[in-house]
Amino acid sequence: MKNRVVTISREFGSGGRTIGRELAVKLGIPCYDEEVIEKLAERSGYSKEYIKERGEYAPAATWIGSALAGRDRNGYSVADSLWRVQSELIQELAEQSPCVIVGRCADYLLRDRADILTVFIHASMEFRAKRIVEVYGQREDSPEKRLRDKDKRRRAYYQLYTDTRWGEAANYHIALDSGVLGIGKCVEILADLYRNGKEN
Amino acid sequence: MKNRVVTISREFGSGGRTIGRELAVKLGIPCYDEEVIEKLAERSGYSKEYIKERGEYAPAATWIGSALAGRDRNGYSVADSLWRVQSELIQELAEQSPCVIVGRCADYLLRDRADILTVFIHASMEFRAKRIVEVYGQREDSPEKRLRDKDKRRRAYYQLYTDTRWGEAANYHIALDSGVLGIGKCVEILADLYRNGKEN
Repeated sequence: MKNRVVTISREFGSGGRTIGRELAVKLGIPCYDEEVIEKLAERSGYSKEYIKERGEYAPAATWIGSALAGRDRNGYSVADSLWRVQSELIQELAEQSPCVIVGRCADYLLRDRADILTVFIHASMEFRAKRIVEVYGQREDSPEKRLRDKDKRRRAYYQLYTDTRWGEAANYHIALDSGVLGIGKCVEILADLYRNGKEN
Repeated sequence: MKNRVVTISREFGSGGRTIGRELAVKLGIPCYDEEVIEKLAERSGYSKEYIKERGEYAPAATWIGSALAGRDRNGYSVADSLWRVQSELIQELAEQSPCVIVGRCADYLLRDRADILTVFIHASMEFRAKRIVEVYGQREDSPEKRLRDKDKRRRAYYQLYTDTRWGEAANYHIALDSGVLGIGKCVEILADLYRNGKEN
Protein backbone atom coordinates (compact mmCIF):
# COMPACT_ATOMS: atom_id res chain seq x y z
CA MET A 1 0.00 0.00 0.00
CA LYS A 2 1.41 3.34 -1.09
CA ASN A 3 1.22 5.99 1.64
CA ARG A 4 -0.61 9.20 0.86
CA VAL A 5 -0.74 10.82 4.27
CA VAL A 6 1.90 10.92 7.00
CA THR A 7 0.77 11.86 10.51
CA ILE A 8 3.43 13.01 12.95
CA SER A 9 2.74 12.93 16.67
CA ARG A 10 5.58 14.29 18.75
CA GLU A 11 6.84 15.12 22.17
CA PHE A 12 7.24 18.84 22.71
CA GLY A 13 10.80 19.86 21.81
CA SER A 14 11.66 16.63 19.95
CA GLY A 15 11.93 18.31 16.56
CA GLY A 16 8.84 16.50 15.24
CA ARG A 17 7.61 19.63 13.53
CA THR A 18 10.96 20.18 11.80
CA ILE A 19 10.98 16.54 10.69
CA GLY A 20 7.46 16.97 9.28
CA ARG A 21 8.43 20.10 7.35
CA GLU A 22 11.66 18.63 5.94
CA LEU A 23 9.92 15.40 5.01
CA ALA A 24 7.18 17.28 3.15
CA VAL A 25 9.76 19.34 1.22
CA LYS A 26 11.63 16.16 0.30
CA LEU A 27 8.43 14.47 -0.89
CA GLY A 28 7.07 17.59 -2.59
CA ILE A 29 3.78 17.51 -0.69
CA PRO A 30 2.21 20.06 1.70
CA CYS A 31 2.84 19.96 5.45
CA TYR A 32 -0.03 21.03 7.69
CA ASP A 33 0.93 22.34 11.09
CA GLU A 34 0.34 26.05 11.78
CA GLU A 35 -1.93 26.02 8.71
CA VAL A 36 -4.34 23.70 10.52
CA ILE A 37 -4.55 26.20 13.37
CA GLU A 38 -5.26 29.05 10.96
CA LYS A 39 -7.95 27.10 9.15
CA LEU A 40 -9.50 26.05 12.45
CA ALA A 41 -9.56 29.68 13.62
CA GLU A 42 -11.38 30.73 10.43
CA ARG A 43 -13.86 27.93 10.65
CA SER A 44 -14.60 27.91 14.38
CA GLY A 45 -14.31 31.59 15.23
CA TYR A 46 -11.94 30.87 18.12
CA SER A 47 -8.61 32.69 18.29
CA LYS A 48 -5.42 31.02 17.07
CA GLU A 49 -3.96 31.25 20.57
CA TYR A 50 -6.93 29.43 22.06
CA ILE A 51 -6.78 26.70 19.43
CA LYS A 52 -3.05 26.25 19.83
CA GLU A 53 -3.51 25.84 23.54
CA ARG A 54 -6.68 23.78 23.62
CA GLY A 55 -6.62 21.74 20.40
CA GLU A 56 -3.93 19.41 21.74
CA TYR A 57 -3.63 20.13 25.43
CA ALA A 58 -5.84 19.58 28.42
CA PRO A 59 -6.16 22.77 30.51
CA ALA A 60 -3.34 23.51 32.94
CA ALA A 61 -5.39 23.16 36.13
CA THR A 62 -7.64 20.29 37.17
CA TRP A 63 -8.57 19.20 33.70
CA ILE A 64 -11.44 16.94 34.68
CA GLY A 65 -13.20 19.80 36.43
CA SER A 66 -12.61 22.03 33.47
CA ALA A 67 -13.73 19.41 30.98
CA LEU A 68 -17.04 19.21 32.81
CA ALA A 69 -17.48 22.95 33.20
CA GLY A 70 -18.97 25.36 30.66
CA ARG A 71 -20.97 22.88 28.61
CA ASP A 72 -23.71 23.96 26.22
CA ARG A 73 -27.33 22.71 26.22
CA ASN A 74 -26.23 19.52 24.43
CA GLY A 75 -23.56 18.84 27.02
CA TYR A 76 -20.66 19.84 24.74
CA SER A 77 -17.83 21.98 26.06
CA VAL A 78 -15.98 24.50 23.91
CA ALA A 79 -13.11 21.99 23.68
CA ASP A 80 -15.55 19.34 22.44
CA SER A 81 -16.86 21.55 19.68
CA LEU A 82 -13.30 22.46 18.70
CA TRP A 83 -12.56 18.72 18.57
CA ARG A 84 -15.46 18.21 16.14
CA VAL A 85 -14.35 21.00 13.80
CA GLN A 86 -10.77 19.71 13.98
CA SER A 87 -11.88 16.17 13.12
CA GLU A 88 -13.75 17.34 10.03
CA LEU A 89 -10.85 19.48 8.87
CA ILE A 90 -8.25 16.70 9.24
CA GLN A 91 -10.45 14.33 7.24
CA GLU A 92 -10.85 16.93 4.50
CA LEU A 93 -7.11 17.60 4.29
CA ALA A 94 -6.38 13.88 3.99
CA GLU A 95 -8.95 13.57 1.21
CA GLN A 96 -7.65 16.56 -0.76
CA SER A 97 -4.10 15.46 -1.55
CA PRO A 98 -1.07 13.60 -0.20
CA CYS A 99 0.30 15.52 2.79
CA VAL A 100 2.09 15.50 6.13
CA ILE A 101 0.00 16.47 9.17
CA VAL A 102 1.77 17.38 12.40
CA GLY A 103 -0.07 16.79 15.67
CA ARG A 104 -3.80 17.43 16.24
CA CYS A 105 -4.43 13.71 16.93
CA ALA A 106 -4.43 13.14 13.16
CA ASP A 107 -3.13 9.58 13.65
CA TYR A 108 -6.25 8.74 15.62
CA LEU A 109 -8.64 10.67 13.40
CA LEU A 110 -7.36 8.96 10.23
CA ARG A 111 -6.85 5.51 11.76
CA ASP A 112 -9.32 3.82 9.42
CA ARG A 113 -7.49 4.87 6.26
CA ALA A 114 -5.20 2.20 4.79
CA ASP A 115 -2.99 4.81 3.11
CA ILE A 116 -1.59 6.52 6.19
CA LEU A 117 1.80 6.20 7.83
CA THR A 118 1.58 7.08 11.53
CA VAL A 119 4.76 8.36 13.15
CA PHE A 120 5.74 9.23 16.72
CA ILE A 121 8.85 11.34 17.40
CA HIS A 122 10.35 11.47 20.87
CA ALA A 123 13.66 12.33 22.55
CA SER A 124 15.25 12.44 25.96
CA MET A 125 14.42 15.20 28.42
CA GLU A 126 18.00 16.47 28.09
CA PHE A 127 17.84 16.77 24.28
CA ARG A 128 14.43 18.44 24.36
CA ALA A 129 15.36 20.88 27.15
CA LYS A 130 18.35 22.08 25.16
CA ARG A 131 16.29 22.35 22.00
CA ILE A 132 13.36 24.34 23.40
CA VAL A 133 15.73 26.93 24.84
CA GLU A 134 17.40 27.23 21.40
CA VAL A 135 14.08 27.42 19.55
CA TYR A 136 11.78 29.27 21.97
CA GLY A 137 14.28 30.98 24.29
CA GLN A 138 14.51 31.05 28.09
CA ARG A 139 11.37 31.47 30.18
CA GLU A 140 10.70 31.95 33.85
CA ASP A 141 10.09 28.23 34.37
CA SER A 142 12.98 25.83 33.73
CA PRO A 143 12.88 23.98 30.39
CA GLU A 144 12.40 20.68 32.26
CA LYS A 145 9.35 22.03 34.09
CA ARG A 146 7.91 23.35 30.82
CA LEU A 147 8.41 19.97 29.18
CA ARG A 148 6.88 17.99 32.03
CA ASP A 149 3.85 20.28 32.05
CA LYS A 150 3.37 20.07 28.26
CA ASP A 151 3.82 16.27 28.23
CA LYS A 152 1.30 15.82 31.01
CA ARG A 153 -1.35 18.00 29.43
CA ARG A 154 -0.89 16.55 25.95
CA ARG A 155 -1.19 13.05 27.37
CA ALA A 156 -4.38 13.99 29.25
CA TYR A 157 -5.92 15.54 26.13
CA TYR A 158 -5.08 12.52 24.03
CA GLN A 159 -6.50 10.15 26.62
CA LEU A 160 -9.72 12.15 26.91
CA TYR A 161 -10.47 12.38 23.20
CA THR A 162 -8.97 9.22 21.76
CA ASP A 163 -9.09 6.88 24.76
CA THR A 164 -5.65 5.57 23.84
CA ARG A 165 -2.31 6.05 25.56
CA TRP A 166 -0.20 8.77 23.99
CA GLY A 167 3.34 7.61 23.26
CA GLU A 168 2.55 3.88 23.39
CA ALA A 169 4.60 2.27 20.59
CA ALA A 170 1.70 0.03 19.55
CA ASN A 171 -0.31 3.07 18.42
CA TYR A 172 2.14 4.06 15.67
CA HIS A 173 3.57 2.35 12.59
CA ILE A 174 6.98 3.78 13.43
CA ALA A 175 8.37 5.61 16.47
CA LEU A 176 11.80 7.29 16.38
CA ASP A 177 14.14 8.84 18.94
CA SER A 178 15.18 12.03 17.14
CA GLY A 179 17.79 12.84 19.79
CA VAL A 180 19.71 9.62 19.24
CA LEU A 181 19.06 8.95 15.55
CA GLY A 182 19.28 12.59 14.50
CA ILE A 183 16.66 14.72 12.75
CA GLY A 184 18.16 14.19 9.28
CA LYS A 185 18.20 10.41 9.69
CA CYS A 186 14.55 10.43 10.81
CA VAL A 187 13.57 12.37 7.67
CA GLU A 188 15.53 9.92 5.52
CA ILE A 189 13.89 6.81 7.04
CA LEU A 190 10.41 8.29 6.69
CA ALA A 191 10.94 9.49 3.12
CA ASP A 192 12.12 6.03 2.13
CA LEU A 193 9.15 4.40 3.85
CA TYR A 194 6.74 6.78 2.15
CA ARG A 195 8.22 6.26 -1.30
CA ASN A 196 8.51 2.49 -1.14
CA GLY A 197 5.25 1.94 0.66
CA LYS A 198 4.34 -0.39 3.46
CA GLU A 199 3.98 -4.06 2.70
CA ASN A 200 0.44 -4.35 4.09
CA MET B 1 28.26 6.59 16.80
CA LYS B 2 28.53 3.25 15.05
CA ASN B 3 26.21 0.60 16.50
CA ARG B 4 27.75 -2.60 17.76
CA VAL B 5 24.81 -4.22 19.51
CA VAL B 6 21.15 -4.32 18.51
CA THR B 7 18.61 -5.23 21.17
CA ILE B 8 15.19 -6.39 20.00
CA SER B 9 12.24 -6.30 22.36
CA ARG B 10 9.08 -7.67 20.86
CA GLU B 11 5.44 -8.49 21.38
CA PHE B 12 4.78 -12.20 21.28
CA GLY B 13 3.87 -13.22 17.73
CA SER B 14 5.10 -10.00 16.11
CA GLY B 15 7.94 -11.68 14.25
CA GLY B 16 10.59 -9.88 16.34
CA ARG B 17 12.68 -13.02 16.62
CA THR B 18 12.61 -13.58 12.84
CA ILE B 19 13.58 -9.94 12.30
CA GLY B 20 16.50 -10.37 14.71
CA ARG B 21 17.73 -13.51 12.94
CA GLU B 22 17.42 -12.04 9.44
CA LEU B 23 19.09 -8.81 10.53
CA ALA B 24 22.02 -10.70 12.04
CA VAL B 25 22.48 -12.76 8.86
CA LYS B 26 22.40 -9.58 6.77
CA LEU B 27 24.97 -7.90 9.01
CA GLY B 28 27.12 -11.02 9.39
CA ILE B 29 27.01 -10.93 13.20
CA PRO B 30 25.64 -13.47 15.72
CA CYS B 31 22.05 -13.37 16.95
CA TYR B 32 21.45 -14.42 20.56
CA ASP B 33 18.01 -15.73 21.32
CA GLU B 34 17.68 -19.42 22.15
CA GLU B 35 21.45 -19.39 22.72
CA VAL B 36 21.00 -17.08 25.70
CA ILE B 37 18.60 -19.59 27.23
CA GLU B 38 21.07 -22.43 26.70
CA LYS B 39 23.93 -20.47 28.21
CA LEU B 40 21.75 -19.44 31.15
CA ALA B 41 20.76 -23.05 31.76
CA GLU B 42 24.43 -24.10 31.84
CA ARG B 43 25.41 -21.30 34.12
CA SER B 44 22.49 -21.26 36.55
CA GLY B 45 21.59 -24.93 36.70
CA TYR B 46 17.92 -24.23 35.98
CA SER B 47 16.18 -26.06 33.16
CA LYS B 48 15.75 -24.41 29.77
CA GLU B 49 11.97 -24.63 30.14
CA TYR B 50 12.07 -22.82 33.45
CA ILE B 51 14.32 -20.07 32.06
CA LYS B 52 12.19 -19.64 28.97
CA GLU B 53 9.16 -19.22 31.14
CA ARG B 54 10.60 -17.14 33.95
CA GLY B 55 13.39 -15.11 32.37
CA GLU B 56 10.96 -12.79 30.64
CA TYR B 57 7.57 -13.47 32.13
CA ALA B 58 5.97 -12.91 35.49
CA PRO B 59 4.28 -16.10 36.76
CA ALA B 60 0.79 -16.83 35.47
CA ALA B 61 -1.00 -16.51 38.80
CA THR B 62 -0.83 -13.66 41.32
CA TRP B 63 2.67 -12.56 40.46
CA ILE B 64 3.18 -10.30 43.44
CA GLY B 65 2.51 -13.17 45.83
CA SER B 66 4.83 -15.37 43.87
CA ALA B 67 7.53 -12.71 43.68
CA LEU B 68 7.48 -12.55 47.47
CA ALA B 69 7.33 -16.29 48.02
CA GLY B 70 10.25 -18.71 48.09
CA ARG B 71 13.01 -16.24 48.90
CA ASP B 72 16.41 -17.32 50.18
CA ARG B 73 18.11 -16.04 53.35
CA ASN B 74 19.15 -12.85 51.55
CA GLY B 75 15.61 -12.18 50.42
CA TYR B 76 16.25 -13.18 46.79
CA SER B 77 13.73 -15.30 44.90
CA VAL B 78 14.75 -17.83 42.26
CA ALA B 79 13.59 -15.33 39.64
CA ASP B 80 15.86 -12.68 41.19
CA SER B 81 18.89 -14.91 41.04
CA LEU B 82 18.08 -15.82 37.44
CA TRP B 83 17.86 -12.08 36.74
CA ARG B 84 21.36 -11.56 38.15
CA VAL B 85 22.88 -14.36 36.04
CA GLN B 86 21.03 -13.07 32.98
CA SER B 87 22.31 -9.52 33.56
CA GLU B 88 25.92 -10.70 33.73
CA LEU B 89 25.58 -12.85 30.62
CA ILE B 90 24.01 -10.08 28.52
CA GLN B 91 26.80 -7.69 29.51
CA GLU B 92 29.41 -10.29 28.55
CA LEU B 93 27.83 -10.98 25.16
CA ALA B 94 27.73 -7.26 24.36
CA GLU B 95 31.41 -6.95 25.30
CA GLN B 96 32.51 -9.95 23.22
CA SER B 97 31.52 -8.87 19.72
CA PRO B 98 28.90 -7.00 17.69
CA CYS B 99 25.60 -8.93 17.91
CA VAL B 100 21.82 -8.90 17.92
CA ILE B 101 20.14 -9.85 21.22
CA VAL B 102 16.46 -10.76 21.20
CA GLY B 103 14.46 -10.17 24.37
CA ARG B 104 15.74 -10.79 27.93
CA CYS B 105 15.42 -7.06 28.81
CA ALA B 106 18.74 -6.52 27.00
CA ASP B 107 17.71 -2.97 26.08
CA TYR B 108 17.44 -2.10 29.76
CA LEU B 109 20.55 -4.04 30.81
CA LEU B 110 22.72 -2.33 28.18
CA ARG B 111 21.12 1.12 28.45
CA ASP B 112 24.37 2.81 29.51
CA ARG B 113 26.28 1.76 26.38
CA ALA B 114 26.50 4.41 23.68
CA ASP B 115 26.91 1.80 20.95
CA ILE B 116 23.53 0.09 21.18
CA LEU B 117 20.49 0.41 18.97
CA THR B 118 17.33 -0.46 20.93
CA VAL B 119 14.39 -1.75 18.90
CA PHE B 120 10.78 -2.61 19.74
CA ILE B 121 8.70 -4.72 17.35
CA HIS B 122 4.93 -4.85 17.68
CA ALA B 123 1.89 -5.71 15.57
CA SER B 124 -1.88 -5.79 15.80
CA MET B 125 -3.64 -8.56 17.70
CA GLU B 126 -5.07 -9.83 14.39
CA PHE B 127 -1.66 -10.14 12.73
CA ARG B 128 -0.11 -11.81 15.76
CA ALA B 129 -3.00 -14.24 16.29
CA LYS B 130 -2.68 -15.43 12.71
CA ARG B 131 1.09 -15.71 13.03
CA ILE B 132 1.23 -17.71 16.26
CA VAL B 133 -1.15 -20.28 14.85
CA GLU B 134 1.07 -20.60 11.76
CA VAL B 135 4.28 -20.80 13.79
CA TYR B 136 3.23 -22.65 16.97
CA GLY B 137 0.01 -24.36 15.88
CA GLN B 138 -3.44 -24.40 17.48
CA ARG B 139 -3.81 -24.80 21.26
CA GLU B 140 -6.71 -25.29 23.58
CA ASP B 141 -6.86 -21.56 24.35
CA SER B 142 -7.68 -19.16 21.51
CA PRO B 143 -4.68 -17.33 20.00
CA GLU B 144 -6.08 -14.03 21.31
CA LYS B 145 -6.24 -15.37 24.86
CA ARG B 146 -2.69 -16.71 24.59
CA LEU B 147 -1.47 -13.32 23.36
CA ARG B 148 -3.26 -11.33 26.07
CA ASP B 149 -1.82 -13.62 28.72
CA LYS B 150 1.74 -13.41 27.34
CA ASP B 151 1.56 -9.62 26.93
CA LYS B 152 0.31 -9.15 30.45
CA ARG B 153 2.96 -11.34 32.03
CA ARG B 154 5.81 -9.89 29.99
CA ARG B 155 4.70 -6.38 30.91
CA ALA B 156 4.57 -7.32 34.60
CA TYR B 157 8.04 -8.88 34.48
CA TYR B 158 9.49 -5.86 32.74
CA GLN B 159 7.90 -3.48 35.20
CA LEU B 160 9.17 -5.50 38.17
CA TYR B 161 12.79 -5.73 37.07
CA THR B 162 13.34 -2.57 35.07
CA ASP B 163 10.77 -0.22 36.60
CA THR B 164 9.96 1.08 33.14
CA ARG B 165 6.86 0.61 31.03
CA TRP B 166 7.23 -2.12 28.43
CA GLY B 167 6.18 -0.96 24.95
CA GLU B 168 6.44 2.76 25.72
CA ALA B 169 7.94 4.36 22.58
CA ALA B 170 10.23 6.61 24.63
CA ASN B 171 12.18 3.56 25.86
CA TYR B 172 13.44 2.55 22.39
CA HIS B 173 15.45 4.27 19.67
CA ILE B 174 13.09 2.83 17.08
CA ALA B 175 9.76 1.00 17.30
CA LEU B 176 8.20 -0.68 14.25
CA ASP B 177 4.83 -2.22 13.43
CA SER B 178 5.91 -5.42 11.66
CA GLY B 179 2.33 -6.24 10.63
CA VAL B 180 1.89 -3.02 8.67
CA LEU B 181 5.46 -2.35 7.49
CA GLY B 182 6.28 -6.00 6.78
CA ILE B 183 9.05 -8.11 8.28
CA GLY B 184 11.39 -7.61 5.29
CA LYS B 185 11.02 -3.83 5.45
CA CYS B 186 11.78 -3.84 9.20
CA VAL B 187 15.00 -5.79 8.57
CA GLU B 188 15.98 -3.34 5.81
CA ILE B 189 15.41 -0.22 7.97
CA LEU B 190 17.38 -1.69 10.87
CA ALA B 191 20.27 -2.90 8.71
CA ASP B 192 20.58 0.55 7.18
CA LEU B 193 20.48 2.19 10.60
CA TYR B 194 23.13 -0.20 11.92
CA ARG B 195 25.45 0.32 8.97
CA ASN B 196 25.17 4.08 8.77
CA GLY B 197 25.14 4.65 12.50
CA LYS B 198 23.11 6.98 14.62
CA GLU B 199 23.96 10.67 14.56
CA ASN B 200 24.44 10.95 18.34
